Amino acid sequence: MQFVMHEVLNVVDEFKALPKHADLDADTLNAVLEEGGKFAAEVVQPLNLRGDAEGCTLDKATHEVTTPTGFKDAYAQFVEGGWAALSCDPEYGGQGLPLLINQCFYEMLNSASQAWTMYPGLSHGAYEALHAHGTDEQKKTFLPKLVSGEWTGTMCLTEPHCGTDLGLLTTRAEPQGDGTYRVTGNKIFISAGEHDLAPNIIHLVLARLPDAPKGSKGISLFLVPKYHVKPDGSLGERNPIFCTGLEHKMGIHANATAQLSLDGAIGTLVGEPNKGLQAMFVMMNTARLGVGNQSLGLTEVAYQNALAYAKERLQMRSLSGTKAKDKPADPIIVHPDVRKMLLTAKAYAEGGRAMAMYGAMIAEKAHHHPDDKVRKDSEEILGLLTPIVKAFLTDNGFAATNHCMQVFGGHGYIHETGAEQFVRDARINMIYEGTNTVQSLDLLGRKILQNQGATLKKFGKQIEALIAEEGVNEKMAEFINPLATLADQMTKFTTEIGFKGFVNADEVGGASVDYLRVAGHLVFGYFFARMASVALKKIGEGSTDPFYTAKLQTARFYFARLFPETASLMRTARSGVANLLDTDAALT
Amino acid sequence: MQFVMHEVLNVVDEFKALPKHADLDADTLNAVLEEGGKFAAEVVQPLNLRGDAEGCTLDKATHEVTTPTGFKDAYAQFVEGGWAALSCDPEYGGQGLPLLINQCFYEMLNSASQAWTMYPGLSHGAYEALHAHGTDEQKKTFLPKLVSGEWTGTMCLTEPHCGTDLGLLTTRAEPQGDGTYRVTGNKIFISAGEHDLAPNIIHLVLARLPDAPKGSKGISLFLVPKYHVKPDGSLGERNPIFCTGLEHKMGIHANATAQLSLDGAIGTLVGEPNKGLQAMFVMMNTARLGVGNQSLGLTEVAYQNALAYAKERLQMRSLSGTKAKDKPADPIIVHPDVRKMLLTAKAYAEGGRAMAMYGAMIAEKAHHHPDDKVRKDSEEILGLLTPIVKAFLTDNGFAATNHCMQVFGGHGYIHETGAEQFVRDARINMIYEGTNTVQSLDLLGRKILQNQGATLKKFGKQIEALIAEEGVNEKMAEFINPLATLADQMTKFTTEIGFKGFVNADEVGGASVDYLRVAGHLVFGYFFARMASVALKKIGEGSTDPFYTAKLQTARFYFARLFPETASLMRTARSGVANLLDTDAALT
Repeated sequence: MQFVMHEVLNVVDEFKALPKHADLDADTLNAVLEEGGKFAAEVVQPLNLRGDAEGCTLDKATHEVTTPTGFKDAYAQFVEGGWAALSCDPEYGGQGLPLLINQCFYEMLNSASQAWTMYPGLSHGAYEALHAHGTDEQKKTFLPKLVSGEWTGTMCLTEPHCGTDLGLLTTRAEPQGDGTYRVTGNKIFISAGEHDLAPNIIHLVLARLPDAPKGSKGISLFLVPKYHVKPDGSLGERNPIFCTGLEHKMGIHANATAQLSLDGAIGTLVGEPNKGLQAMFVMMNTARLGVGNQSLGLTEVAYQNALAYAKERLQMRSLSGTKAKDKPADPIIVHPDVRKMLLTAKAYAEGGRAMAMYGAMIAEKAHHHPDDKVRKDSEEILGLLTPIVKAFLTDNGFAATNHCMQVFGGHGYIHETGAEQFVRDARINMIYEGTNTVQSLDLLGRKILQNQGATLKKFGKQIEALIAEEGVNEKMAEFINPLATLADQMTKFTTEIGFKGFVNADEVGGASVDYLRVAGHLVFGYFFARMASVALKKIGEGSTDPFYTAKLQTARFYFARLFPETASLMRTARSGVANLLDTDAALT
Repeated sequence: MQFVMHEVLNVVDEFKALPKHADLDADTLNAVLEEGGKFAAEVVQPLNLRGDAEGCTLDKATHEVTTPTGFKDAYAQFVEGGWAALSCDPEYGGQGLPLLINQCFYEMLNSASQAWTMYPGLSHGAYEALHAHGTDEQKKTFLPKLVSGEWTGTMCLTEPHCGTDLGLLTTRAEPQGDGTYRVTGNKIFISAGEHDLAPNIIHLVLARLPDAPKGSKGISLFLVPKYHVKPDGSLGERNPIFCTGLEHKMGIHANATAQLSLDGAIGTLVGEPNKGLQAMFVMMNTARLGVGNQSLGLTEVAYQNALAYAKERLQMRSLSGTKAKDKPADPIIVHPDVRKMLLTAKAYAEGGRAMAMYGAMIAEKAHHHPDDKVRKDSEEILGLLTPIVKAFLTDNGFAATNHCMQVFGGHGYIHETGAEQFVRDARINMIYEGTNTVQSLDLLGRKILQNQGATLKKFGKQIEALIAEEGVNEKMAEFINPLATLADQMTKFTTEIGFKGFVNADEVGGASVDYLRVAGHLVFGYFFARMASVALKKIGEGSTDPFYTAKLQTARFYFARLFPETASLMRTARSGVANLLDTDAALT
C-alpha cells in the first residue's frame, strides 16, 4: 500500500493541490495504515473463522439479532478507536482524512473478516448518502452518530420480486401531513439489517409515494430509524421496521442478511420526491468500489495463507530434481503450477490494489479539487473505473481465492483451514450491488458508448503518456509492448462493438462481459507497467531491495500468464450476439 | 443420453463385437435409463437440499455415524431395486450390463445428490479393485455383498501428512503368521468412511509391511472389514477401525468424510505385497471417471434449474425492446449474458456427456473385446481420456454451476434455492482423486510425452477421419474448420513442449494445466462436430424435430464462445516456466 501510495501514485504531491489535504504528509498516512493494520489483525481477524461457523441468530419473538461471539466487543473497540470517523467530514466529528486511507484500512478489515466489516461498511455508505442528500435536520440528528459509529446504517433496496430492476418495487410511503411518512412493505437481502452492535440502526429505504409515476422514476428515498430519536438526541419509541427472517447463505454467515418488514414505519424523505434512485446512487457507487475492495482484501489474505502453506507442506519431489534433500519430500512451492496459482492471486491483488487506490485518489480530486475541469474529469474517470473495480476485482477475487484453496489440496475443502471460507465469502461480491453483468452493461453501454468513448480516450491519454515516456526504454519493452498493442486494439474493438450496438442494442449485451475483462486488463496492464517502471528506476539507482525485484517478477508473470486472456476475450466478444439469441431450440 | 448412445456412438452396433454384450438391444438400455431416471428423481433428489443442511453426525462414544433423514431408506430402496448390481459380474450376482449404462445412471444420481451417490459410488470402486486383485476367498466372501449393495466399500489412502504423495504414508501392517495382518495408523478424508446405510463396510486400506521398501514401492493394499465375517457369512466381531471424527467441509455435507483410526485392525492382503498402489489404481481410474461424472451430473441439474428460473423471473426489459408486453418486465432469459451463462452450462454438459460416454464405451471394449489390439488400443485411449474427463469436466462443472448460480442473482446465494450447493459440492471434484494439477501432469507427462505422443496420434486419427469425411460438407465448415485448425496446432504445440520438457522437466509442469484444457477442447470439438453432423443429416432427411436444431445451436455456441479459449491457453502455456520459477523474490 505504501509503495502504491508514495512511489506509484505520489498521493501526497497530488493532494497538495487540494486545500483540504494540502498539509497531509506521508508519515501521517503511514501511521494510520500501521495502526489500522494492527486493529484488523489483532481485533477482527481472530473472529472470522468462528463467526462463520456460529452465524447470526434471530429471536423471532423480539425480532432482535445476535451476532457471533466477539463481534459486539470488536465493534465497540472500533468505535472507541475512532475508526468509523477516519474519512468523514470534520463538521460532524470526522477526521477528514482522504477516502484513500479509509479504503486501505477497509482492505485490511476485509482481509480480516468480510462479514464483520460489512457492519461498519454499510454505515459508511449511509453516511455518504445522507451527507450528500440529507436535510440539515437529518444531518444534524444522524450524521454525528454515524460518524462516531455509535449507530449504524443500511441501504434497503431489494424486494422479493426485484433486485436489479428496482423500478418494480412496491414498498409505499404515505405522507402524514407533518413532514413524515408511514412506510409499508417488505425488503429482503438487507446486509447488516439487524444486529446487536449498536443501539440504533438508520435504514435508508426506497419506497413509492402515493402519486408516484410508475417504474424507476417514481422511487423516493426515506430515512427510517429503528428507534425514533427524541429532540435531546436520546432514543425514543421503536419504529415498526422488524427483522422477520435471516437468510441461510453460502458465505458471509456472520453478517446478518435480514428480511425486513415495514408496517407503517415512520420515516422522513431524503432528497427530492421521486428522485430516490439518484440519491441512492451516491451510496451505490461508493458501495461498488467497496465491493471491489472486499474481494481485494480476500485475495490478499487467501494469498498470504496459501503462500505460507506452500512453503511448509511437503509433498512429492520437484520434476527437475530434489530440492529439499534433508526432507522426506519437497515443499509444494517448488511445483510450477502451485507457483502459478500463488502468483495469480498475488498479481490480482497487486493490480487490483493499484487500480482501487488510484480510484480512491481521483474520487478525492472529484470531490475536493479547486479546479472545475479536474473535478469533472476525475468524476468521469471514476465513473468509468467504478464498474471495472466492482466486476473485474470480484471476478478475479473469486478466481484467486479458488486458486489459493486449491493450493491446500484436500485440506482446503475443510472449514478449519479457512481457505474455503474466503471462496464462499468472495462469491457474493460478484452478485450484490449490481451483478457483474449489470456492471459490464454500465461500463460499455453507459460509460463508454453513450459518449462515443470520450471518457475512455481521456483515460487512454494517460496510457499513451506512459508509452511515450517508456517506449524508448529497452528494459520496459516487455511491459510496454503488450500494453501498447492492447491499447491500439481496444480503440478498434470499442468502435466495432459501438457500430454493431447501434444497429442492434443486444450486441452490447452479448459483448459487454468479455469487454469489461479486456478493459480490466488494459487498466491492470497500465498499472503493472507503471509499477515495473518504478522498480526498474530503483534498481537502476542501485537498490538491491528484493521488494523491487519482486515487483518486476510479478509484472512479468502478469503479462506472460494473465494478460493474454484478452486474445480469447476479444475473439468471443466479436463473435456476435446471434450465437446467443438464435438459440430458442437449445434453451427449451 | 439416448442421442449420444444410439445416434452418435452407435453403442449397440459397437457392442455386437463383444460376446458379452452381443445380444444387447437399445430397448433394454433405454428402459434401464428411464427407470434409473425415475429412481434418481423420485427417491434421491428430494433428499439433497435437506441432507446438506442436516449433515452427518458422529456419536463419539460408539464411533457410529448417522446420515441425514431419508438417506438410509433411499439406500434400502437402491439395494432392493438391484441398482448396485447393474454393471457387475453375473458370477457374483451382477446384471452384467455395460459400464456405460451404470455411468449414465450415476450421472442422474449425481444430479439428484452427489453426497448421497458417493455412498454406493465408493462401493463400486471397491468392487472393481477386489474383482481385479482379490483372492478367490476374498471375492467369494465380499463381492456378492458389494454387488447386492448389502455392504458398502471405501478406499483409505490419505493420511494427515500425505495425499498426493502416497509414498510418504506410514500406516503399517504386521503379519500375524496366519495369513492376516494387524493394521495400525490414521487415515483422513475417507469418503463414506462410516455411516448407517449398511451393516458392514469393507475398507480397502493402503499400508506398509514391516520389510517394505521406502516410498511408493513399499505400499500394500489390505481389505479391512468393519465387522469380521464368519464362515457362514454372518457378521462377527467388530474390527478396531473406528471413525474418530467427521470433517466440516465446504460441501457434500451429507457424505460422511471420516477420520479413521486403525488400532491393530485385522485385514487381509489384496494383490501382491508392495504392489498396493497398482491394485489401488484400478479403483483410482474408475474413481477419476466417476468424479468427472459427478461434475457432469451437477452441471446438468444446475443448468435445468437455472433455465427454469430464467424463464420465470421477470426483471428489466430486453435491450432491443420489450419482449413480454403483457408483463411488468421481461423474463431474464431475453438478456444475452443470461443466455450465455445458460448455454455455457448446457454446452459443458453435452460435450462432457459425449466424452464421458465415449470413455465408458471404450472401457467396455478394453475389458471385453475379443481382439487383443482393440483391447490394447481402447485401454490406451481410455488412459489418455481419464485425466481429461476428471480435470476438464470438473473445472467446467465448477464454472457451469457458478454461471447457473449467477443466473439466480442474489437468490442464488441463498441455500433454499439449491444453486449454491451445486457450486460447493462441485468444488471438491477439482481436488479429490488426484488434484486437477496432478491430472494434467498425468496427461502431458505420462500419457502423452512418455510415448512421444503415440496415443494422442491414435485418437487424432479419429479426428482426421471425421475431417476427411466432413471436410467437403459446406454446412459442416463452421465446425470442422476450427477443429482442424486446433488439431494441426496441437501437434506442433505438443512437440514444442516435449522438446522443452526434455531440456527442463519443469517446463512440463509449467504448461500442463493449460495443455489439458486445450486437449479437452480438442476432444469436445471433435464430439460437437460429430453431434452437429448427426443433426445436420437428420435435418437434411427432413426432420423438423427441434431437438436437432438445438444440437446445432449448441455446437455453434460452443465453437463461437467457448472453444476460442484455446488461443490464450496456448499462448500462456508457451510462455515458458521461467516466469513461474524465477520468482523467489515475489514469493516471499
